[in-house]
Amino acid sequence: MSSTFGTLFRVSTFGESHGPAVGVIVDGMPPGLEVKEEAIQFELDRRRPGQSAITTQRKEADAVEILSGVYEGKSLGAPIAMLVRNTDMRSKDYDALKEVFRPGHADYATFAKYGVRDHRGGGRSSGRETVGRVAAGALAKAALATVGVTVVGGTVRVGNTEAHDRDWPQVELNPVRCPDADAAQLMQVLIEKVRDEKDSVGGVIELVARGVPAGWGDPTMDKLDARLAAAMLSIPATKGVEIGGGFAMTALRGSQTNDVFDGERYATNFAGGISGGISNGNEIVVRVAVRPATSIGKPQTMAKQKGGTETVTIEGRHDPCICPRVVPVGEAMMAITLCDAWLHQRAIRGGDR
Amino acid sequence: MSSTFGTLFRVSTFGESHGPAVGVIVDGMPPGLEVKEEAIQFELDRRRPGQSAITTQRKEADAVEILSGVYEGKSLGAPIAMLVRNTDMRSKDYDALKEVFRPGHADYATFAKYGVRDHRGGGRSSGRETVGRVAAGALAKAALATVGVTVVGGTVRVGNTEAHDRDWPQVELNPVRCPDADAAQLMQVLIEKVRDEKDSVGGVIELVARGVPAGWGDPTMDKLDARLAAAMLSIPATKGVEIGGGFAMTALRGSQTNDVFDGERYATNFAGGISGGISNGNEIVVRVAVRPATSIGKPQTMAKQKGGTETVTIEGRHDPCICPRVVPVGEAMMAITLCDAWLHQRAIRGGDR
Amino acid sequence: MSSTFGTLFRVSTFGESHGPAVGVIVDGMPPGLEVKEEAIQFELDRRRPGQSAITTQRKEADAVEILSGVYEGKSLGAPIAMLVRNTDMRSKDYDALKEVFRPGHADYATFAKYGVRDHRGGGRSSGRETVGRVAAGALAKAALATVGVTVVGGTVRVGNTEAHDRDWPQVELNPVRCPDADAAQLMQVLIEKVRDEKDSVGGVIELVARGVPAGWGDPTMDKLDARLAAAMLSIPATKGVEIGGGFAMTALRGSQTNDVFDGERYATNFAGGISGGISNGNEIVVRVAVRPATSIGKPQTMAKQKGGTETVTIEGRHDPCICPRVVPVGEAMMAITLCDAWLHQRAIRGGDR
Amino acid sequence: MSSTFGTLFRVSTFGESHGPAVGVIVDGMPPGLEVKEEAIQFELDRRRPGQSAITTQRKEADAVEILSGVYEGKSLGAPIAMLVRNTDMRSKDYDALKEVFRPGHADYATFAKYGVRDHRGGGRSSGRETVGRVAAGALAKAALATVGVTVVGGTVRVGNTEAHDRDWPQVELNPVRCPDADAAQLMQVLIEKVRDEKDSVGGVIELVARGVPAGWGDPTMDKLDARLAAAMLSIPATKGVEIGGGFAMTALRGSQTNDVFDGERYATNFAGGISGGISNGNEIVVRVAVRPATSIGKPQTMAKQKGGTETVTIEGRHDPCICPRVVPVGEAMMAITLCDAWLHQRAIRGGDR
Repeated sequence: MSSTFGTLFRVSTFGESHGPAVGVIVDGMPPGLEVKEEAIQFELDRRRPGQSAITTQRKEADAVEILSGVYEGKSLGAPIAMLVRNTDMRSKDYDALKEVFRPGHADYATFAKYGVRDHRGGGRSSGRETVGRVAAGALAKAALATVGVTVVGGTVRVGNTEAHDRDWPQVELNPVRCPDADAAQLMQVLIEKVRDEKDSVGGVIELVARGVPAGWGDPTMDKLDARLAAAMLSIPATKGVEIGGGFAMTALRGSQTNDVFDGERYATNFAGGISGGISNGNEIVVRVAVRPATSIGKPQTMAKQKGGTETVTIEGRHDPCICPRVVPVGEAMMAITLCDAWLHQRAIRGGDR
Repeated sequence: MSSTFGTLFRVSTFGESHGPAVGVIVDGMPPGLEVKEEAIQFELDRRRPGQSAITTQRKEADAVEILSGVYEGKSLGAPIAMLVRNTDMRSKDYDALKEVFRPGHADYATFAKYGVRDHRGGGRSSGRETVGRVAAGALAKAALATVGVTVVGGTVRVGNTEAHDRDWPQVELNPVRCPDADAAQLMQVLIEKVRDEKDSVGGVIELVARGVPAGWGDPTMDKLDARLAAAMLSIPATKGVEIGGGFAMTALRGSQTNDVFDGERYATNFAGGISGGISNGNEIVVRVAVRPATSIGKPQTMAKQKGGTETVTIEGRHDPCICPRVVPVGEAMMAITLCDAWLHQRAIRGGDR
Repeated sequence: MSSTFGTLFRVSTFGESHGPAVGVIVDGMPPGLEVKEEAIQFELDRRRPGQSAITTQRKEADAVEILSGVYEGKSLGAPIAMLVRNTDMRSKDYDALKEVFRPGHADYATFAKYGVRDHRGGGRSSGRETVGRVAAGALAKAALATVGVTVVGGTVRVGNTEAHDRDWPQVELNPVRCPDADAAQLMQVLIEKVRDEKDSVGGVIELVARGVPAGWGDPTMDKLDARLAAAMLSIPATKGVEIGGGFAMTALRGSQTNDVFDGERYATNFAGGISGGISNGNEIVVRVAVRPATSIGKPQTMAKQKGGTETVTIEGRHDPCICPRVVPVGEAMMAITLCDAWLHQRAIRGGDR
Repeated sequence: MSSTFGTLFRVSTFGESHGPAVGVIVDGMPPGLEVKEEAIQFELDRRRPGQSAITTQRKEADAVEILSGVYEGKSLGAPIAMLVRNTDMRSKDYDALKEVFRPGHADYATFAKYGVRDHRGGGRSSGRETVGRVAAGALAKAALATVGVTVVGGTVRVGNTEAHDRDWPQVELNPVRCPDADAAQLMQVLIEKVRDEKDSVGGVIELVARGVPAGWGDPTMDKLDARLAAAMLSIPATKGVEIGGGFAMTALRGSQTNDVFDGERYATNFAGGISGGISNGNEIVVRVAVRPATSIGKPQTMAKQKGGTETVTIEGRHDPCICPRVVPVGEAMMAITLCDAWLHQRAIRGGDR
């Protein structure tokens, strides 16, 4: 159990929500690749709080500093450490929570695990830990781009409102990050309503990788499905993941869901681009269930550390729907997972085939 | 990428469907625990082909031999190697498949990955690889039992037929392994119909772990959700996984899905027993989407290795619904995952708390 | 802590000296390579007891069976499991040792670690565990040969008798496996004398890898020196390792030991082929200190499990000097280490450069 | 291959000699332990350049900043990131080295490996990378202290001058860090002579761990000897390691080197506290061969990146004997290795036995 994801492209995050900083080490970035601080900052800005009316109003510049592994704009093959200082912490907001365990949060489980905890903002369990993942994901995206692989993502459901289109360029044009402009409007209305009720609502995000050649992944324990599932359910607030046809496919027949392949093209994509754990050349499609954010502004019953319960209202600034901010994290984790699989395939075959 | 799952309780399988044998090494079984060959054989018999009218009729005794790590009936703390010889292989059935890639199967992806493959029965990608997992899972179950943790599982959906009860002792009383006797009958009728059509149908299995204390898991990359998701989607034919409220929860509000805890009991279990990646003391509940088996008896269009397509009917003995046989594999992978998390928590806290 | 060595070329051994079998899984053998059972058996025969008058007279055929990962004589890219049955065990010889801890052996430490032990022949701590390493090493040698890398080894010191020549083909022509024919004779006389005294004597083995291109290894934690040192000191009875100039170099000046390189050739090899943890294109040279075998036929004072001491003479068949049999194990571990480093470099650079 | 050491107590360094900073993440520090910045700074000051007349005169404050994992002076069980900014870099000194490969250094091997390099001060291969190790080692020492384990170290040979005493408190009283006051004076004279000749000289350091209970380590691949050997030879400028009797023992007989144990005490310590890879309750004793520093002020022949050779004098500030500064690094790596073994043993036995 550790804070590291990946074995050849290794991403290790550190930092608590209300500590001095959060950050990441990426160990395994191939050498000689261009590393642009702007590209990293661009992804961090997509994850940043306060970016729109429907995200938390915590203000963090989230300015990244590269500490190592890059020389004259190129990766050295050495660990790339990246640092983001915490600035707008308002730890006082959390004073009332020092001795209680918030429902839905990791407070009680964390205390049971370690016997000690930093109650301010969830400490290590805060969504703020994903800053490091997004920075690392920017590097993974840059590395994958050199072999023609791209990753896109968006919010495809909020509450019961579903996106029908997959018009990916729409994603950065609406605050919900929905690839369907019409659905985006309905989703936004719903999120604003939920926000005004001091509540939160869940949703589903979808991630797609294009250009992945057949052959990445593994047939058994490290199936690409398994690695992607681990990547996704390591993101805070996620409680489900499906590949390709996913749960819907369970109601169908094999004669419907066996994707017919003519050697170049697939007629369907129930497999979500992964057959027997190995990429099959089709688009890789993953959907992730994002639960309603556990931080809400309503009064809630909380267990006290010393026994008994108490009704507490959590001050602080919350996200009514976390999906728009989970999208860049999901993309990052998908890119990281694929980058790791790519390097493994290079080890196995001795080249980029 | 490897054939190993786990870091402290490490399970490494080997073997192809039509090779001499399949098996597993379990490295990390705590020392001094009773190891009963019968308990391992019992689990293997639950996974075995030919066990009922609705599973494949391939006949394998699947008799396990313990090769190491056990002395006078007790684990030594050394690797426990277990071997199952393949016997009823009928490799001839696969001659027609030597030069084609079956739709839905890993054939093409495997060839793209390795440049070489054993076409007989799917080789390493065969469900037969799970023999080793089930044997390892029997050890994990035995180890967990010493700290009061048990794992149960069953088929809770086939096609569109859902189980409503969770009467777990029912599971071994019907061939579908459904915890709802009434639903089991409907499921069986459906599976027989599908079998007679030489087709297959998907379903959902559910796995429940009881007795897991709060504190197992990790807050970030190795969240218990993530580890369980990886475990589940490493099982052949799975394409989705959800924890607790899962996808259904995405349509709800935080005020509904934040499980209220009074310090001893939870009012609800939307978190599926895991908060922020760490067990919270509640039952751990996982559901897995099992796709319709890709092996079907209908004629299908297949890509030829040398280009072009061909219509081929796959001889061989197929499972019309793989769910009943995935249940013991799912239980095994859940037990293995929990055993690993348990040992990690012992390292962190220095004892079984 | 585990029974596995390597991360991309992973070797996992199993088996106790007096259990049913010993063996190994090799996970990560590149696909499409020729795998010859004779080549594996050849290496096992070099390690086998009873091969000459100066090794233990335990008789083991050590016949290897390949259980998986090979199809039509080629590696599939899947785990290759190999099994050797134990046959000539004479466990009775060890009855007197059930309740005592032999000096020099791992008996007491093992019992302290696990609280349980298989006292027969040292169980897992027996030199017999190296059967699996040697089988795995044969695969590593075959894989390395495809990129022009070879590994040789020999005994270069026994007691105070040193080899001066490095005439490697001599190694298989004398029972000491010494690359210096004259020294071999003196060593043999010494070993026979020690054997007749029911004692044992230590020595040094040297291992050389040729053809390793510059660029394998890592600059920090996984320096190639570090990996080789771990590989060597994981072999039973070893207590020291040095690379290139090693300990002797500590008495010299930098102006003497900085190997001058003209871009093609090195004037000297104090670095032993590894600069800053990375292969530099020169021969890789490793020497390993092998202690006198702890199993001797003289009466010895032993601690009793229940307290107090007792004088016991260990029956059984001992090696007066273990060096000749450590040579193939050392070669195997060197080949395994290099194979792992090679695959890592393929991942980093995307090809065999 | 990575910049990480350890599996349960994981130490990951980052940073180049002439980049913005060096540092480390320690993932796996047990929760609830006191973490004192002064204790970390104390160890860094022992490693710091410019601390005496016989070390390099590069001036680095090496002030540590803790970025995460500590709250109110206690470890949280989360990753502890520590940062040290580089300040006195004088990169200009290295301009002459941009296109040549220094003899003895990793320059050529690094370029062969990555195809790109930061030539300034050796980049990642600089001894400066060990800053992170020493900071991590301070945490490991603090953790081990809670179970009564301490680590000491010193220089026991420089050139041909050997220490005879092991009066450990002497170590911090002389600039050579020698545990023998008389030998220290001779060593100092030798080092000053070598310094004045613009040359360097090698030596041996010895590390001792006290209070390690029997039972830490592993019987096969992860023998404690193997882990310690990897730890030591991952330190820059080391080329040999021996445990207990080491190389000297190879000239002796088993009847001499089998340490007799009466159940409480050992008569001798040829095993160096480790039997069959597992700690046996005796002091753990490790010696490390440190080569003469490759950075010297004499003119040297260097290969040019574009072919041919050139005679170059390396400007910069060098250590005439690196041993005094390797001592704290060696202690750190020993403490890290033992901490990892301790946590593994907790996982295996469920408590601190």
